[in-house]
Amino acid sequence: MKEIEQLSINAIRTLSADAIQRANSGHPGLPLGAAPMAYELWANHMNHNPADPDWPNRDRFILSGGHGSMLLYSLLHLFGYGNLSMEDIKNFRQLGSPTPGHPEYGCTPGVEATTGPLGAGMGMAVGMAMAEAHLAAVFNKEDYPVVDHYTYVLGGDGCMMEGISYEAFSLAGTMGLHKLIVLYDSNRISIEGSTDLAFTEDVTARMAALGFQTLTVEDGNDLEAIAAAIEEAKKDTRHPSFITVKTQIGYGCPAKQGKASAHGEPLGADNVTALKETLGWPSKEDFFVPREVYDHFAQIARDKAETEAAWNVMFAAYCQEYPQMEELWNQYHDTSLGLEFGEDEQFWLHGDKPEATRSLSGKLLNYMTEKLPNLFGGSADLAPSNKTTMNGKGDFTKDTPEGCNIHFGVRELAMTAIGNGIGLHGGLRPYVATFFVFSDYMKPMARLSALMQVPLTYVLTHDSIGVGEDGPTHEPVEHLSMLRAIPNFHVFRPCDSVETAAAWYSAVTSRKTPTALVLTRQNLEPVHGSSREALKGGYVLADCQGTPEAILIATGSEVNLALKAKDVLEAEGRKIRVVSMPCMEVFEEQTREYRESVLPRSVRKRVVVEAGSDFGWGSYTGLDGACVTMNGFGASGPASQLFEHFGFTVDHVVETVRSL
Amino acid sequence: MKEIEQLSINAIRTLSADAIQRANSGHPGLPLGAAPMAYELWANHMNHNPADPDWPNRDRFILSGGHGSMLLYSLLHLFGYGNLSMEDIKNFRQLGSPTPGHPEYGCTPGVEATTGPLGAGMGMAVGMAMAEAHLAAVFNKEDYPVVDHYTYVLGGDGCMMEGISYEAFSLAGTMGLHKLIVLYDSNRISIEGSTDLAFTEDVTARMAALGFQTLTVEDGNDLEAIAAAIEEAKKDTRHPSFITVKTQIGYGCPAKQGKASAHGEPLGADNVTALKETLGWPSKEDFFVPREVYDHFAQIARDKAETEAAWNVMFAAYCQEYPQMEELWNQYHDTSLGLEFGEDEQFWLHGDKPEATRSLSGKLLNYMTEKLPNLFGGSADLAPSNKTTMNGKGDFTKDTPEGCNIHFGVRELAMTAIGNGIGLHGGLRPYVATFFVFSDYMKPMARLSALMQVPLTYVLTHDSIGVGEDGPTHEPVEHLSMLRAIPNFHVFRPCDSVETAAAWYSAVTSRKTPTALVLTRQNLEPVHGSSREALKGGYVLADCQGTPEAILIATGSEVNLALKAKDVLEAEGRKIRVVSMPCMEVFEEQTREYRESVLPRSVRKRVVVEAGSDFGWGSYTGLDGACVTMNGFGASGPASQLFEHFGFTVDHVVETVRSL
Repeated sequence: MKEIEQLSINAIRTLSADAIQRANSGHPGLPLGAAPMAYELWANHMNHNPADPDWPNRDRFILSGGHGSMLLYSLLHLFGYGNLSMEDIKNFRQLGSPTPGHPEYGCTPGVEATTGPLGAGMGMAVGMAMAEAHLAAVFNKEDYPVVDHYTYVLGGDGCMMEGISYEAFSLAGTMGLHKLIVLYDSNRISIEGSTDLAFTEDVTARMAALGFQTLTVEDGNDLEAIAAAIEEAKKDTRHPSFITVKTQIGYGCPAKQGKASAHGEPLGADNVTALKETLGWPSKEDFFVPREVYDHFAQIARDKAETEAAWNVMFAAYCQEYPQMEELWNQYHDTSLGLEFGEDEQFWLHGDKPEATRSLSGKLLNYMTEKLPNLFGGSADLAPSNKTTMNGKGDFTKDTPEGCNIHFGVRELAMTAIGNGIGLHGGLRPYVATFFVFSDYMKPMARLSALMQVPLTYVLTHDSIGVGEDGPTHEPVEHLSMLRAIPNFHVFRPCDSVETAAAWYSAVTSRKTPTALVLTRQNLEPVHGSSREALKGGYVLADCQGTPEAILIATGSEVNLALKAKDVLEAEGRKIRVVSMPCMEVFEEQTREYRESVLPRSVRKRVVVEAGSDFGWGSYTGLDGACVTMNGFGASGPASQLFEHFGFTVDHVVETVRSL
Repeated sequence: MKEIEQLSINAIRTLSADAIQRANSGHPGLPLGAAPMAYELWANHMNHNPADPDWPNRDRFILSGGHGSMLLYSLLHLFGYGNLSMEDIKNFRQLGSPTPGHPEYGCTPGVEATTGPLGAGMGMAVGMAMAEAHLAAVFNKEDYPVVDHYTYVLGGDGCMMEGISYEAFSLAGTMGLHKLIVLYDSNRISIEGSTDLAFTEDVTARMAALGFQTLTVEDGNDLEAIAAAIEEAKKDTRHPSFITVKTQIGYGCPAKQGKASAHGEPLGADNVTALKETLGWPSKEDFFVPREVYDHFAQIARDKAETEAAWNVMFAAYCQEYPQMEELWNQYHDTSLGLEFGEDEQFWLHGDKPEATRSLSGKLLNYMTEKLPNLFGGSADLAPSNKTTMNGKGDFTKDTPEGCNIHFGVRELAMTAIGNGIGLHGGLRPYVATFFVFSDYMKPMARLSALMQVPLTYVLTHDSIGVGEDGPTHEPVEHLSMLRAIPNFHVFRPCDSVETAAAWYSAVTSRKTPTALVLTRQNLEPVHGSSREALKGGYVLADCQGTPEAILIATGSEVNLALKAKDVLEAEGRKIRVVSMPCMEVFEEQTREYRESVLPRSVRKRVVVEAGSDFGWGSYTGLDGACVTMNGFGASGPASQLFEHFGFTVDHVVETVRSL
């Protein structure tokens, strides 16, 4: 190893240790152990341009072990990404700094994904590699590999123990994502102690079984071995690669290296000093970086910039030779595409017969494929039920990466992470699908969509006891509440074709908010009075003369029930308003005046009708209203009997209103 | 194969096909393909007694592919379990029948677990096998193997694709759970088509890498090969076994076998007829079972009953020889144990100094181990942070199965399924633990705890922005809402030592409801006025003279904040009540009178103070109240700054009350 390389690696280590010590909080173990592989990768193998973190053809790097964030921040600082300053490093983990405890997408230039929940980065990396494979198949022409980059992901034992990484890697193996390269920081230590306690499997053999090329670096400080493994990984053009790099957690800190105590707390001032001595660091000063280290990284950054410059030249020639491809490229990268559906009458006219909203959704999806060529998604093995197949758009497989329909397999959690990864990659509009009840499995990654502001679309069908015979394991009850409670997450439960169109329109025009479409299995009668006002989240569907005595608020399959109850109540001379509320969160975003016009504060008799939990409706019903909702789990039986059994009848709604 | 065996297998097949046809709903593919292995196992290998489904030492069988429920119901009917009648079979999937669409624990004698969400059964089976291994180590004496049974689980490609099964099996391999035997119904078909689409991994090699003995039955109709594999599996006393049984989905139905269409819809009347012809079935009549088949199963059942009889004899001798073990056995199986803590003053007195509720919880847990020897649990690699280690109780490992502390590894989802499995097994009191934010990963199995009424305890620490520097990926916001929305699930967020004791007391005395303890990372000042009234879920912590002008409702770390705000407001001459609401669900279970006494309907100025989402509090604040809660995700920074930043200050609470 050259001296400057060793110095550069140790700069990463000492910066990490110093920042964590100053913050009095953080995880030094990973940066100390993994600094060599990260340095080697970023300096000598990755195509990236610190001056342009958004270059579309950059290699992606995800730190799946997000707790090791100082490893990444050190690299970003030394390479000069977004002018991440030493002051920023010193403000590690401080409120408002661009160096939060775990890497946050959108907060720090060069951070490709928010990581921290273990394994998530592995799943997102698979998504990015899928996006690359697909876009390459769509765009590349002979001599013009305009999409041609690797996706690197670095994680440790924790990431490998989580089921999400298994799910994602099994799919990556099936898809033959050969430009995915996993760096497994194998230090054999977890928080509770040696991995012998809970993780004695043969990881390499497992990854080989999943269809990965497996490589091992016996000494994580051996740059040549790391380089050789990365090159070997690149050579395999049929399989993703998995490189086990054996490291020592907390390397260089005599009192802590190889121990669980190195993982998640500052080393302590004395140990930082000892670390610097052990590493032969030239200064005792905190946050010291030798001038030659900065110069070294700057030189590399300049060289890297030339790679992008060359790509720019190639891309210009490509556009000249293939103007129609340039147009397509622009379409793929135009996030405003989809807005035109707002004025497209065909889009809003899907059916006036009884139909399930899942079926309407399927028709809308297929209608949209003409104008949105970059839709890319699929289901966790439920496409025929979710109605999420895009006809004529092909299957995305190892041999047909140009296909747009993804077969995720029964892997809801990895699917969601992959969807996020596709969204983060750019150039594509991802969607994912499963039964609504299995949104449970998606939750950790749905949260990440919201936190990262990735507008992933969730198609969630079979949305209530309307599931019928499959019974309570398959009948969502609390799932609307679960998703509605996530900040920055839109949950649409449309009642008919126009509201389903509104839901899709909202989803494909969203820039920073993921959207769930919660759809019925069963047919619904068309709703009289439904309209594009649904884009406001909630609106008056049917009104009375003057001030209403009571307001019925309903969503999805219960909207028609509310309308029928209104008829009965009006026949008694009561003044009833029916509000359709397909998306509570979007309604909350409206002006106070609008909300007041729909739900006047003075009208206190309010009844919510929804075949889900009442949890979360209290802010609409107040202390004086009531809910016709589910109070417990569902049951197995024909759907019509279940709706009756659980009180979703005109009589019960009417009686509830009368009782107020 | 003997004729009676073939006839018995085909009885399972035709019953399944007929029931699904009659219900016009269901999944015939699995029962038709897996009938031989299920028959062979239940008839010739499993120790069970249809006359006593609760025999503690029975072999456990879990149908992880729960959609194949008719396979199980056919067996239960033919063996005479709980008198499951032909009428019940005919009422398959009908409301109120003991034959719901997916197997439901507690609904049908002989059903060991609720399954349907794929992979869940695999996780629960690992839990049952862990329970067996632990109890065997605790109770068995030479010549008295009083705990000595196998756990069998049957599932297909979907179960194997789900990350939960990987997580659970990796742990099972580490633990060397050699009495776990997995039957993998490998038919290479999933709903979207061939498993080649999404699942080309070498499953056998993967399972070998996890530490399983792997066996393969090339022909799923070959009873001898199935028998040989099961016997081989039993012989391995160091590794769990994984038997791949190659089958044809929908076997025997010419139009559908081997096709995805066989999976999840009735075969159709014509195809049922064709099936019976192909199988050489002796009758065209629906629901026909030859007399000799019933006789055959009855004979087997009688033989099986003798196995239990022999065990009863042995157990009686064991009790005589080891009276202290009998006493211990009774303790382990006495679910009322724990009630005595209600009168145990020591239990309620844990600290009067500032302390984190996670730390108080750890002390309580350790205090309880003396009286509750059958506590068995641990954390997903966060025990030092969760404070869930039971001191002096040893680690549960391959070589020390008598240990009580389980190291689950970073596997929150499998951990929860395993916790459920331990609970279902009986004899133990399981608990599981992780950071509260990672309850996201647990959600699918937390729902199953609630649905199955397994009183699993969830220790969830680091419960808010009090997490501080780790930032938004580690700061729960919507998680209280998520868990509170689950039916039959208690969520306690205690404010100090006495409320933490109440939470644990509620958890260990619960019979049918799981309980989450949501605990702080940071120290909390003792709360003046807190009391065992916390067992009512919510109570008046501090009151005013006469009717309050406003009520502050707070939980956990925000209770003291509410008390301080009350002081300020009272200095202004306002009458303020403070209600502590550690468990909303338990409060809702109280009488209307009690609830009215705590929260009089007439008092409309209500302010909720909780460092979580406001979602779900509307039913307490109504339309006239307000929330001092989180409106979005957290941030990375010192906790004290975050509380200030997000408005958890006396000033803000006071201002909010004034503004009403």
